[in-house]
Amino acid sequence: MALYVYKFGGTSVGSVERIKMVAEKVKKAHDLGDKIVVVVSAMSGETNRLIGLAKHMQPQPNDRELDTLVSTGEQVTMALLSMGLEELGCPARSYTGSQVKILTDSSFTKARILNIENHNIMADLNDGKVVVVAGFQGVDEDNNITTLGRGGSDTTAVALAAALKADECHIYTDVDGVYTTDPRVEPKARRLDRITFEEMLEMASLGSKVLQIRSVEFAGKYNVKLRVLSSFTQGCGTLITYEDSAVESALISGIAFNRDEAKLTISGVPDLPGVAYKILGPIADANIEVDMIIQNVADDATTDFTFTVHRNDYARAKAALDKTCVELNAKKVMGDEGIVKVSIVGVGMRSHAGIASTMFKTLATEGINIKMISTSEIKISVVVDEKYMELAVRALHAAFKLDQDSAV
Amino acid sequence: MALYVYKFGGTSVGSVERIKMVAEKVKKAHDLGDKIVVVVSAMSGETNRLIGLAKHMQPQPNDRELDTLVSTGEQVTMALLSMGLEELGCPARSYTGSQVKILTDSSFTKARILNIENHNIMADLNDGKVVVVAGFQGVDEDNNITTLGRGGSDTTAVALAAALKADECHIYTDVDGVYTTDPRVEPKARRLDRITFEEMLEMASLGSKVLQIRSVEFAGKYNVKLRVLSSFTQGCGTLITYEDSAVESALISGIAFNRDEAKLTISGVPDLPGVAYKILGPIADANIEVDMIIQNVADDATTDFTFTVHRNDYARAKAALDKTCVELNAKKVMGDEGIVKVSIVGVGMRSHAGIASTMFKTLATEGINIKMISTSEIKISVVVDEKYMELAVRALHAAFKLDQDSAV
Repeated sequence: MALYVYKFGGTSVGSVERIKMVAEKVKKAHDLGDKIVVVVSAMSGETNRLIGLAKHMQPQPNDRELDTLVSTGEQVTMALLSMGLEELGCPARSYTGSQVKILTDSSFTKARILNIENHNIMADLNDGKVVVVAGFQGVDEDNNITTLGRGGSDTTAVALAAALKADECHIYTDVDGVYTTDPRVEPKARRLDRITFEEMLEMASLGSKVLQIRSVEFAGKYNVKLRVLSSFTQGCGTLITYEDSAVESALISGIAFNRDEAKLTISGVPDLPGVAYKILGPIADANIEVDMIIQNVADDATTDFTFTVHRNDYARAKAALDKTCVELNAKKVMGDEGIVKVSIVGVGMRSHAGIASTMFKTLATEGINIKMISTSEIKISVVVDEKYMELAVRALHAAFKLDQDSAV
Repeated sequence: MALYVYKFGGTSVGSVERIKMVAEKVKKAHDLGDKIVVVVSAMSGETNRLIGLAKHMQPQPNDRELDTLVSTGEQVTMALLSMGLEELGCPARSYTGSQVKILTDSSFTKARILNIENHNIMADLNDGKVVVVAGFQGVDEDNNITTLGRGGSDTTAVALAAALKADECHIYTDVDGVYTTDPRVEPKARRLDRITFEEMLEMASLGSKVLQIRSVEFAGKYNVKLRVLSSFTQGCGTLITYEDSAVESALISGIAFNRDEAKLTISGVPDLPGVAYKILGPIADANIEVDMIIQNVADDATTDFTFTVHRNDYARAKAALDKTCVELNAKKVMGDEGIVKVSIVGVGMRSHAGIASTMFKTLATEGINIKMISTSEIKISVVVDEKYMELAVRALHAAFKLDQDSAV
């Protein structure tokens, strides 16, 4: 008899019909004798509808009130799912974040979970009930309703799994697992049976939006076995676990890409200590997140400094940088919005030389010019012209034999 | 500097535009230096939408989950109104029933308020904030969300006014006060400046649906001054207070009517002790509420027994009574769905003879046959054929000079 936390996202509970399907699926697992906690998101579209109402009232809605407002979305779903389960003869009981209680800090709209009380839920589970919990929400010390930010239902599920010492945490979504790359770009993309937390983190942060990145961090930290599955089809999805020998055998697990970035370069910067701070300080002050940062070796007394930002922040970052350019007496600012970042990810590359050279050679063979390179222990990212994106992904997918079974 | 509790119903907060109008009204009062607590209902239509979703999931929805579900309606409104107030520069803070906390018993869908904690609200009021509270909801001891039943937002407002020792509780609605009768039936109907709690109770229970009856009881019990006003127009509405000399001067305050009843008679019942119980027991067992009950004096060894029920319950009540008729060896069962109850209400009738005779004479003059009569200390009700309703109301309105100013 195992304890599972299931999480169903907005699309999976997007209508009463779909909530009924979820109820059927949950009942089946419950009938097998397993203990089931279900975390639900708001019905798809509901959160946006509520935010729309809020913005009608107040263009910059009060954070506390916004959280109180949007938290109703999950509350509706959890009550409906509990009714659906009861209708199938499966005893169920719903809990808001406050009722659980999921204690968070007071950072409205992006709160962090501090503690989860598990005795009420455990009592219900031992009583034979399915427990349905509203995702995405909690309460702070003063009983204010908080939310964890978009996608926070994944985090709720993982945190609950940790607090309840669940055997596995299942994230049901509209894809049937984690793929070697996006199947819309490379039809030969293959579903992975397993992936490590670290790989998943790199994949997620690079735009493979299967899971919210914070939930993966959380799962890794608290040793929660995470499984990504489809709400709509059968199958065992992809298990996200600690690195182990079975995973080690694959050099590269997948290829991620991100179309949302833009590149900025300031050239002819006097090469003095503190220059990086002078360049990035105003960017940080403008609340713009920077992704890749590269500073080339200075050729004379000056250096070139390049970084990437989200494309939405490009105009603001450019304006800040133009000002810095004058202040630093640098040569000029160059920007490029037409870029894409393509990355190969795999824990296997740690112990294998030659991965980078295979990557660069593959791109060169296809005539793709590399504009930037950045590496981590288990990832190599390159920035290329966005027109090459599909070509780069497919060429790398083939070069690392990702369409074949995992033993390389 | 006074403390007011304002309550706005579903129509008054039926759209973001209307919620903005409410925010303007509240801000004006706040700017005058008064302390304002606002109780809000769900946006009109929202509660029905949620119940519709629930019935899709479970034809007889689980009570606890239903309360959890529908309570989101008020939570949405309270957050939106707080945003609207903040946008106008008026500091505001919203509270769910649980956050207040409004402690109730565990009778889901029809809970009763046991206690209200007022220290959080008082602290916010003293801090210069407007406090916005979700109507209609509370929590039980185990932190389950409960609702007070339809119209329960009025009860929340009155209970809060009592707990906060508010100077007045204002119920904003789509009418501008309590009228001598329904202006749609008698255009000469006049708005009353004042009415007593007891009169209001009789008017409300007889179908003048300005206020929920429970809230009036509550206001009387806890000595809360209640005022009914329009959300959409200016004016001081109708104040509902204890009986006092100013009110005493009017013999009759108003004429109420109720089209929702049906009449059932069982005749030729053996006139023995316990017969009323034998007749009404099965009706109560079927969970049917009975309004008027009349048993005529027996002429020989048998008696006739008549009562009224809600028209929706007529068929079920008739079936139960038919069975009882056989069991008691009574003569027959007669039913009439085409009736209406018309009542005159006024604390003044206590000390004045002749009110009943004026009523009966007026109806006789118009050729209206009276089918049943029932009286209380401050009310006389008659049941007549429903085709006479408008005629009866207008004739009585004129006979008691209700179109003229209150001094009779």
